[in-house]
Amino acid sequence: MVVILKKNPNEKQLENLKNWLRSLGLELHISSGANQTVLGLVGDTSVVDIDLIKALDIVEEVKRIQEPFKNANRKFHPRDTVIEVGEMKLGGGNFQFIAGPCSVETEEQICYVAQAVKDAGAGILRGGAFKPRTSPYSFQGLGAEGIRLLLEAKAKTGLPIITEIMDLHQLEYFDDVDIIQVGARNMQNFELLKELGKTDKPILLKRGLSSTIEELLMSAEYIMAGGNEKVILCERGIRTYETFTRNTLDISAVPILKKLSHLPVIVDPSHASGISWLVEPLAMAAVAAGADGLIIEVHNDPARALSDGAQSLTPDQFDQVAKRVFQIGKAFGRKVD
Amino acid sequence: MVVILKKNPNEKQLENLKNWLRSLGLELHISSGANQTVLGLVGDTSVVDIDLIKALDIVEEVKRIQEPFKNANRKFHPRDTVIEVGEMKLGGGNFQFIAGPCSVETEEQICYVAQAVKDAGAGILRGGAFKPRTSPYSFQGLGAEGIRLLLEAKAKTGLPIITEIMDLHQLEYFDDVDIIQVGARNMQNFELLKELGKTDKPILLKRGLSSTIEELLMSAEYIMAGGNEKVILCERGIRTYETFTRNTLDISAVPILKKLSHLPVIVDPSHASGISWLVEPLAMAAVAAGADGLIIEVHNDPARALSDGAQSLTPDQFDQVAKRVFQIGKAFGRKVD
Amino acid sequence: MVVILKKNPNEKQLENLKNWLRSLGLELHISSGANQTVLGLVGDTSVVDIDLIKALDIVEEVKRIQEPFKNANRKFHPRDTVIEVGEMKLGGGNFQFIAGPCSVETEEQICYVAQAVKDAGAGILRGGAFKPRTSPYSFQGLGAEGIRLLLEAKAKTGLPIITEIMDLHQLEYFDDVDIIQVGARNMQNFELLKELGKTDKPILLKRGLSSTIEELLMSAEYIMAGGNEKVILCERGIRTYETFTRNTLDISAVPILKKLSHLPVIVDPSHASGISWLVEPLAMAAVAAGADGLIIEVHNDPARALSDGAQSLTPDQFDQVAKRVFQIGKAFGRKVD
Amino acid sequence: MVVILKKNPNEKQLENLKNWLRSLGLELHISSGANQTVLGLVGDTSVVDIDLIKALDIVEEVKRIQEPFKNANRKFHPRDTVIEVGEMKLGGGNFQFIAGPCSVETEEQICYVAQAVKDAGAGILRGGAFKPRTSPYSFQGLGAEGIRLLLEAKAKTGLPIITEIMDLHQLEYFDDVDIIQVGARNMQNFELLKELGKTDKPILLKRGLSSTIEELLMSAEYIMAGGNEKVILCERGIRTYETFTRNTLDISAVPILKKLSHLPVIVDPSHASGISWLVEPLAMAAVAAGADGLIIEVHNDPARALSDGAQSLTPDQFDQVAKRVFQIGKAFGRKVD
Repeated sequence: MVVILKKNPNEKQLENLKNWLRSLGLELHISSGANQTVLGLVGDTSVVDIDLIKALDIVEEVKRIQEPFKNANRKFHPRDTVIEVGEMKLGGGNFQFIAGPCSVETEEQICYVAQAVKDAGAGILRGGAFKPRTSPYSFQGLGAEGIRLLLEAKAKTGLPIITEIMDLHQLEYFDDVDIIQVGARNMQNFELLKELGKTDKPILLKRGLSSTIEELLMSAEYIMAGGNEKVILCERGIRTYETFTRNTLDISAVPILKKLSHLPVIVDPSHASGISWLVEPLAMAAVAAGADGLIIEVHNDPARALSDGAQSLTPDQFDQVAKRVFQIGKAFGRKVD
Repeated sequence: MVVILKKNPNEKQLENLKNWLRSLGLELHISSGANQTVLGLVGDTSVVDIDLIKALDIVEEVKRIQEPFKNANRKFHPRDTVIEVGEMKLGGGNFQFIAGPCSVETEEQICYVAQAVKDAGAGILRGGAFKPRTSPYSFQGLGAEGIRLLLEAKAKTGLPIITEIMDLHQLEYFDDVDIIQVGARNMQNFELLKELGKTDKPILLKRGLSSTIEELLMSAEYIMAGGNEKVILCERGIRTYETFTRNTLDISAVPILKKLSHLPVIVDPSHASGISWLVEPLAMAAVAAGADGLIIEVHNDPARALSDGAQSLTPDQFDQVAKRVFQIGKAFGRKVD
Repeated sequence: MVVILKKNPNEKQLENLKNWLRSLGLELHISSGANQTVLGLVGDTSVVDIDLIKALDIVEEVKRIQEPFKNANRKFHPRDTVIEVGEMKLGGGNFQFIAGPCSVETEEQICYVAQAVKDAGAGILRGGAFKPRTSPYSFQGLGAEGIRLLLEAKAKTGLPIITEIMDLHQLEYFDDVDIIQVGARNMQNFELLKELGKTDKPILLKRGLSSTIEELLMSAEYIMAGGNEKVILCERGIRTYETFTRNTLDISAVPILKKLSHLPVIVDPSHASGISWLVEPLAMAAVAAGADGLIIEVHNDPARALSDGAQSLTPDQFDQVAKRVFQIGKAFGRKVD
Repeated sequence: MVVILKKNPNEKQLENLKNWLRSLGLELHISSGANQTVLGLVGDTSVVDIDLIKALDIVEEVKRIQEPFKNANRKFHPRDTVIEVGEMKLGGGNFQFIAGPCSVETEEQICYVAQAVKDAGAGILRGGAFKPRTSPYSFQGLGAEGIRLLLEAKAKTGLPIITEIMDLHQLEYFDDVDIIQVGARNMQNFELLKELGKTDKPILLKRGLSSTIEELLMSAEYIMAGGNEKVILCERGIRTYETFTRNTLDISAVPILKKLSHLPVIVDPSHASGISWLVEPLAMAAVAAGADGLIIEVHNDPARALSDGAQSLTPDQFDQVAKRVFQIGKAFGRKVD
């Protein structure tokens, strides 16, 4: 961390700052010029509250050199994290498809889709039970009953299941859920993240609509700081001025996250675009950019889906996409089964 | 609501759609041309799930004419909502200053600031007890103890207090809090909003960093749909590409929210800019644009504040700003005390 | 300027860098720690090409302390620039209204509007002759004939005129134009800026749709580096994810530009919002935030305007807005006539 | 096009609107309900100025069904456009690499890089002669001399060349240039586009930093409306709130542009990211998403490049990337030589 001081800093305040920094166990290197003084801080600066220093009268600017995350940082954990659920492996070269409907609707529906996506090669079943909807008047999901139906589908197909949690008080229903999803709108629901850090279940953490890559990693850090290192990062599109797509898939986030962190990175082309015919090209791009997996919406009858139908694939369409993705995934050296 | 169909829609699907829409109690008006058919839906369309219709194969586009919010809509409630806490009134021409430190630190600190902002004309004391911080290693607030200290300051000064809730399980500590704040990161924490809709306390709802004006009103609608109509809307800056300020104050949101809704609208120039010298000009602009109030960070010692110090005013600076704002507020016809 | 080097920089490359920086007349201050070395550069760093240094293998990060603009910088020119055209003064406390139609259509139209806005207190007449339109099939303006009509209106009313240039080859038509406007889409048309720097006419420079405040000042610097110091900066809204307004007025840009630069700053609430009923509140906010003037679209028949009608005011509406703005402008200490 | 009228529109104004629309050769279909009237316009609506209609008092909203571009529209030209320069083909399944330095510096440099990128498989040489730089104090390119050096490199290697034009008056130097580039900052320099529409040279049109996909196609339409149908579209990153990369590569733009238009689409991963280690994964993603080509910066000595060095590859790095891209390109069915 480098602290650039204002011209002619107050001597006493400077002395206080230096003493405080040293009290945090940091080593100080000072460079004084005619126009500026620079303090170089050496040591574990990840625990320093950067705002505190910026706020000081005598400080012009503070610049981090080290990233502010530790547990999620590849520098300290060079080897890829591999998430395992039963026989399913994700990360470290193991590629996975997560597929299923946006919302669980009926037992018949979820079991039908589960079998179809399994047949097409998906390793994990997704389905929304608790649904975050912009309008209080929209369908809010089946809730606990939705999870029960997912477990039926799991029993029939053997696929591990993933579903979204929206609030801490729902945690009681997630005992048999294999992977817990934190949605984009809850990426900075820090109380939820802290609590999930105390569980031992894998967490799929979706990037917030307007969150930076660093903020995503800091949210992963919240979970990991609690002791749960099984975090899967998910790029799902960010909010920009472009209106053709619902969101803008930030494809660069994939190689950046892979470089900065050892955690597996997956991509959600369905939510990123909101358009079913974009799912295949974006899925291909994600694999090419290095993604460890994909999460894709599949619905037996997209035209009648209770939510987000316009972006869902039919089982047949998913089968086609999966075939092409597996083919390309192999070309890129990914283990696809 | 207007539904624009694709060319040559499947007759059977069209018939199904028409029957379903009529079953929702809507009147249909159909226009068929050589290239397109348009369905005009008349009636209460606020309960229609727009995604459901968009998802249909035969639908090209759906366009709302009515806004999707009802309780927050000025069309149905033309008169300004006035929030009252004791003798404090906000909205309907009543202007209020909410002021105080970002974080409550000590009893001495909060009582000192409370008295200072009261002397300068503030009507409500703010102070953070539960703090949402990007990093798990940053100061997380004093929690329940912070609320206890705020209540001490309330007892000494008579100022009603406002503080932020981050999760439902914290609600037990808010019994004596006058106004509950929902922060930008929780604007779409729908479970929290639903629960707050069951309380009878005024809720200060901050706009999310990348939320649209309509999404803010839909979140207000979540609270109001539960029966609590005491919602205060707060514009606090949105995330854009500009990096000079922490966020970009969307000043247009003030007159737009005032036109679309009857709810009071306040502005937070401290968080919008993140820079203390911008607080005064942005506060003035907010009053000029029609804001019903301002929420401003004031700290006895900004240079040593435990969070967000760079944007805080000293009590003396706040006193200057308040004087100018009150003067201009009167020129704009606002009741300022 | 502060150059932060990577750990263990190559000694020879470091020596080359130091020699090169010294050859630019800069003084170097070096701080070496266990983890990083920092070079502090003292002297006139505005001529240093920051990309050149960033590109070096041994460099981690470069941080400017000084702004990269000089002529536009208030630090070097503390006093407000005042633009004078005949008796019209803009800047340094002198407030001006620029008003007129988006496009010049007929002599009758422009003369009628000119007289109306003059009567309401406008000091400068605007009108588009060369029109930048997104579609090649949209009305492209009357061109040189439009300027001729503006000069007729000037002859009749005595108002100085301002109109937009889109390309260098149009410059021949601007001999009698009082102020030349550079539109948002041309803010970084550097060849045009360079050429305008050789003229002695005031230039109204509009901020690009996605330009930062610093980029706007750098474009002003292009004009000023050529010798023309008569630049008026104009905030006209930036492109964000919010779709309610056409653009998002960045009101913070006003006090920031006033602090960083001595150049006059005006605001265009018509283009920023694209909605006529937002013009008044945004105009008020602009004055309150410190703007030196406003540029507002006024059309005799907004509902039949050949371009941008939806955002134009009628002469009567403009008269009302002007009255309120002048009243508030005086309250803020601005000279309004 | 669908025009949604306000409730109870003025009869006389409605009659005027209907007559005017019919006078444009459009067929009208009217649907009247209790709450709204909708006009469906059938015919060639691409020449209708949408703002004109939106501006009318009686109009609530106007919604295009047809895209506003014709010449660039795949609906009217289903077959892929193939750009040919000598033996080089781009589009219609023909994949091309465009490579070379950001700026032409010396004859030795450009000839060395030209040979190196040719050896690695590039089909076109790029090099900046006229350089758009944010600061007037930065290196502005060698200008006409730079083009002369590019022609030397072309003579030696046989590679066709591409370089950027910044202003109409530079056109005289482009006689022997094979492809003219319009940079992101000039994407809406409409006078330049019009003039280039009169030439018969292929134009590489880069997407503006904050331009929508539709605006890019409208700018292509400007060129094509002048008679020049040889336009290559280039996605090069858009401006968002994310600061890790210089811009955010909008990978979705590739399949969208390919679907909406018959024009070839290439991607610039160097400028999109501004980081050399991101060039390979983004190049791979672009190919996977359907791009017809790539434009990549290659410099013999990136660490000493006079501009944009941080994002340039060395010839050796480029050779590696090209090998992998060609391999994957073939897997995706692209003709790579």
